[in-house]
Amino acid sequence: MERLEVAKKARLTKPSAIHGMSALAASMPDAVALSWARPDAPTPDHINNAAIEAIKKDLTSKYSPPPGLSKLREVIAEKVRRDNNIEVEADGVLVTTGAMEGIFAALLVLVDPGDEVLMPSPNYTTHELSVKMSSATPVYFPTIEEEGWRLDIDGLKKAITKKTKAILYCNPCNPTGAVFPEEDLRKVAEIAIENNLWIITDEAYEYFLFDGEKHFCIGSIPEMKGRVVENFTLTKTYAMTGWRIGYDVSTPDLIKEVIKAHTPMTICAPVVSQHASIEAITGPQDCVKEFYNHYLEWRNLMCSRLDRLSSIFSYHKPKGSYNMFPKILTKEGKDSVSFCMNLLKGAKVATTPGAPFGPTGEGHLRLCFCSSKEVITEAFDRMDKYFGI
Amino acid sequence: MERLEVAKKARLTKPSAIHGMSALAASMPDAVALSWARPDAPTPDHINNAAIEAIKKDLTSKYSPPPGLSKLREVIAEKVRRDNNIEVEADGVLVTTGAMEGIFAALLVLVDPGDEVLMPSPNYTTHELSVKMSSATPVYFPTIEEEGWRLDIDGLKKAITKKTKAILYCNPCNPTGAVFPEEDLRKVAEIAIENNLWIITDEAYEYFLFDGEKHFCIGSIPEMKGRVVENFTLTKTYAMTGWRIGYDVSTPDLIKEVIKAHTPMTICAPVVSQHASIEAITGPQDCVKEFYNHYLEWRNLMCSRLDRLSSIFSYHKPKGSYNMFPKILTKEGKDSVSFCMNLLKGAKVATTPGAPFGPTGEGHLRLCFCSSKEVITEAFDRMDKYFGI
Repeated sequence: MERLEVAKKARLTKPSAIHGMSALAASMPDAVALSWARPDAPTPDHINNAAIEAIKKDLTSKYSPPPGLSKLREVIAEKVRRDNNIEVEADGVLVTTGAMEGIFAALLVLVDPGDEVLMPSPNYTTHELSVKMSSATPVYFPTIEEEGWRLDIDGLKKAITKKTKAILYCNPCNPTGAVFPEEDLRKVAEIAIENNLWIITDEAYEYFLFDGEKHFCIGSIPEMKGRVVENFTLTKTYAMTGWRIGYDVSTPDLIKEVIKAHTPMTICAPVVSQHASIEAITGPQDCVKEFYNHYLEWRNLMCSRLDRLSSIFSYHKPKGSYNMFPKILTKEGKDSVSFCMNLLKGAKVATTPGAPFGPTGEGHLRLCFCSSKEVITEAFDRMDKYFGI
Repeated sequence: MERLEVAKKARLTKPSAIHGMSALAASMPDAVALSWARPDAPTPDHINNAAIEAIKKDLTSKYSPPPGLSKLREVIAEKVRRDNNIEVEADGVLVTTGAMEGIFAALLVLVDPGDEVLMPSPNYTTHELSVKMSSATPVYFPTIEEEGWRLDIDGLKKAITKKTKAILYCNPCNPTGAVFPEEDLRKVAEIAIENNLWIITDEAYEYFLFDGEKHFCIGSIPEMKGRVVENFTLTKTYAMTGWRIGYDVSTPDLIKEVIKAHTPMTICAPVVSQHASIEAITGPQDCVKEFYNHYLEWRNLMCSRLDRLSSIFSYHKPKGSYNMFPKILTKEGKDSVSFCMNLLKGAKVATTPGAPFGPTGEGHLRLCFCSSKEVITEAFDRMDKYFGI
């Protein structure tokens, strides 16, 4: 009898490197982690309290409609019009179980098996996993490291083939912390229109831009209407990663399409989290400002500590997100997986190797500055010692 | 310029008929609904309180590991060994955002585009949606209505082709309420082994079996080890549909495969719901007994009311779940969508047309008896009047 084998796409796919490293680090209780892009702060009290109130009022027992609670879709539409400059009503919003679900569902309804999906390199590893699990083909186009990981527009044009169906990117970028400027995104939009390509975005870090940078949504370009599914999340903005809540924004017709994949995924987003999210969006926003100030301070701390390790790492100061992607200058750094593994074993500092972030990720590592001053200080004290600085 | 089109699989797929009817019914405030398989009861207090306690202790802010909280995986494994007779440890459990997510993730890693997935007809509509969104081909095999919707084992054998890769079924069955006997499932297992097919199950209604029927898990057959992914949910058992929590049970190796699709779907199940679930599984089980007694009583009520409408409907008494699938005897019933639409408009009773449940679903309608005595009584009073009984 022939062997019972899993699907080809699964055989060709490795498990998430990020989660693998996090799991290994978690098994070492004395390790310090810069590896998971997960805010260390608790969810703010007023958001937690809204969840508790909703539970007490028995508003959380039952499914919501698959696209989400009406009230939540309305307040999201208002936020998107105000902060993202996209003209949308509640019927252009789909509440999802985190931004990843929205991205995966959009991929499943927009691209068929064998279609190519373009992503910049480096790029968030889980996007590649989504593309592969859609039976589509991930194709990378370059970014320009020397210019702070800017999109290589000519490289994007060259990567387009007859099979290209969509462009997927994360802005601000995980892992590099690059913020793609409006000027470049307008060029991406032109290319998408010329070549009849969908655009799927991941805007998880939209509120964490530094040094006067401005966040630009490609969906705010009127000509892009009906060509874009933008994905947002509350989990990064409000320290709610455990609550699993995000949303897709598009035209009502495209949202109806995305629901065809959203329904078999989760039917509806967790309802308790939907109630917490109404409060997150409509309640006081001081917490976002506070997180922002922390991340800015911790970014600066991480950069100044990296400056002391300038024989080991070079870097571009991240303009957004709470991730950065230093280059490893030592010859051991050419194999980022071994480098990070040795760092974990030798210095008890967990980081994420660059290799899985795309073809230009090798020779780098991802560091997250969303934990705390103490964690960052301790991690770099250990690294100083480990590298003999 | 050519038109920018969604994926072929999306163009070929209709939105969920169940959710469409529920949405329409929801827009009619005076309609009575027998259409959505959603318990009307609130989540029990002790489960809600466990969620509230977890929030207060700040256990819900952050991602859990992708496969779920260790403690939850352990108590699930214990439950599965005890109640489902499957030998499994925590590493054979994947916590998912409802059973649907587990089924869809299993499909994505087990079947490739173009593979055929066999399902009995009638079958839960969202399974077909999952198969289509996996770019696989749904293929139905018959059940025997005259024998209470029993699986047609010869029909199953005949439906197998070179492209068949998996069998997916729901037991107890949604929409028919049939309970597939151990004898038949052992034959399904033999067929799966002979033909080298995966089996994916949906056991959402495992605790709601009536008239002395016993629930049998195909994964409890030792020879089936490594060939089955069984999917369970807490949402039906504990009236927790809004919390979105379920789990996959398989071998540790297969669970690792399923995680490749689970990660890009939701990263991890909502953490607040995971804490509620620990309490649901380990806390007092009186609530399950209470729900059971209600469903049994309401099933009997629904059947006796249907007996009064014997010129309109015939039915097989459901042996499990809280759904049943009467046959419509009138000539209008040949088009179940129109029949149900007229019933909604004329009698203000929402039901679900049978047509979307598979090729033998037409001419039937699904009725759910999970609401309350009052709702069922009111719905049938209206139907008596509408049909002039």
